Amino acid sequence: MARALIDDEPSVEDLHFPRVLEVIADPIRLSIVAQLAAAEADISCGNFDLPVKASTATHHFTALRQGGVIHQYYVGTSRMNVLREADLEQAFPGFLPSVIAGARSGGEHETGRSHR
Amino acid sequence: MARALIDDEPSVEDLHFPRVLEVIADPIRLSIVAQLAAAEADISCGNFDLPVKASTATHHFTALRQGGVIHQYYVGTSRMNVLREADLEQAFPGFLPSVIAGARSGGEHETGRSHR
Repeated sequence: MARALIDDEPSVEDLHFPRVLEVIADPIRLSIVAQLAAAEADISCGNFDLPVKASTATHHFTALRQGGVIHQYYVGTSRMNVLREADLEQAFPGFLPSVIAGARSGGEHETGRSHR
Repeated sequence: MARALIDDEPSVEDLHFPRVLEVIADPIRLSIVAQLAAAEADISCGNFDLPVKASTATHHFTALRQGGVIHQYYVGTSRMNVLREADLEQAFPGFLPSVIAGARSGGEHETGRSHR
């Protein structure tokens, strides 16, 4: 099926570290990043385990996209999410892997990943 | 001269990644961290280059201390600041170096480090 990228995102050259850091530091957004990192495939917005309602989650996905942390694209009517791992690694080497490792080691219970 | 540590800080075992990330993500606090990382010695609160007044800066230093990112101690009447680099490396390997590198590469102009 055709993919339609939502294209209001910064290019890798325009990634701005303080912005990326602030975007990723929110606990809900950190949980989204951790879930994407742990997944074996892209995830649609409705298939994350988040302790907020859908409209709030949409706001967080938008912040991640506009900050340059994820791509979003449509497959049919599903909005899919994928981490920009290669872009972030190119711009800020080692940052994303250390954040993902940190999120795993020290704070899963506060980032919405508990089983409900 | 004797050092008096301000001791309302978490031990390395109690460092909590989402908290550390949120504390460090504020642009003023990121600038404080970057300046400490670039310095060859501990820095007193009055000797940072920050675009905020002293009382606001004090609030940011306290957040960094209570989040576990810096130690603060008195030498006489000067409150000194030092990055907890070894503690953070032990708890979250690679995180602080990647943040320092990112702050250098992508956002100096927005983190208060410009010469005034």
